[in-house]
Amino acid sequence: MNYEERDAYGMYKISSAQSGGPDTRQGPGPHLMGADTLIGNDVYNRDGEDLGDVKEIMLDMRSGRVSYAVLSFGGFMGMGEKLFAVPWDALKLDTENKRFTLNVNKQQLESAPGFDKDHWPDMADATWEKSIHAYYGTKPYSPTPRV
Amino acid sequence: MNYEERDAYGMYKISSAQSGGPDTRQGPGPHLMGADTLIGNDVYNRDGEDLGDVKEIMLDMRSGRVSYAVLSFGGFMGMGEKLFAVPWDALKLDTENKRFTLNVNKQQLESAPGFDKDHWPDMADATWEKSIHAYYGTKPYSPTPRV
Repeated sequence: MNYEERDAYGMYKISSAQSGGPDTRQGPGPHLMGADTLIGNDVYNRDGEDLGDVKEIMLDMRSGRVSYAVLSFGGFMGMGEKLFAVPWDALKLDTENKRFTLNVNKQQLESAPGFDKDHWPDMADATWEKSIHAYYGTKPYSPTPRV
Repeated sequence: MNYEERDAYGMYKISSAQSGGPDTRQGPGPHLMGADTLIGNDVYNRDGEDLGDVKEIMLDMRSGRVSYAVLSFGGFMGMGEKLFAVPWDALKLDTENKRFTLNVNKQQLESAPGFDKDHWPDMADATWEKSIHAYYGTKPYSPTPRV
């Protein structure tokens, strides 16, 4: 499942009548993408291994930032039942293959900090936040409260 | 439909065994909210009028910011067919009523810039962006490209 297949509102469809040609930019993508269309998208690593897919996208309501994707690394190593919060900055949208790239190998994922769906962590907790960013080599954003 | 009803992964459920009491913070909400759970949530104004609901949430892939909610202001003034991009900062999550508040009245919405689903605007276009923010009295974020 990818964002074009999940495009219920037609935001990525190019209208040839309107665009005047196949290369004319139109519509929000790929600079702006619909959160709902990104849910269910596959996540691969740079070795082309399928790691799992996006189950949720966590929004920080205080800062207006996208903070985490919640992934399920299904189908290997018995990790199918667990969920993993991955910093948004650790994921890159691969518009050619219409999927996300996460630069970790499967061995690294074995020790990734996960949780089960009945026990979601307090994602606003600074200690938890630091540990997740340390694991993926990303940086927490400094707090920028909404005015 | 509200985020608790759409909570497929149980992120907002408080486990009393774990929390030790009804007031103990646990889980991501309300500081962090799942994008998928927010889709379909109602939008009211401060007069308590039902304006419509959230159809999509647009993420700026360059900056990692939540940029717009795409709303449908259904059921009045023949606006049911149109979609409206509303700056994320113009919306406030009302956790008491489990819905969003948008501070505009129905008359103001009559002249709101909308689009139909077959013609999504280029939301990365600076002119479009400015006009939307001017309408709702919000400010575009300065570009903060991902490193």
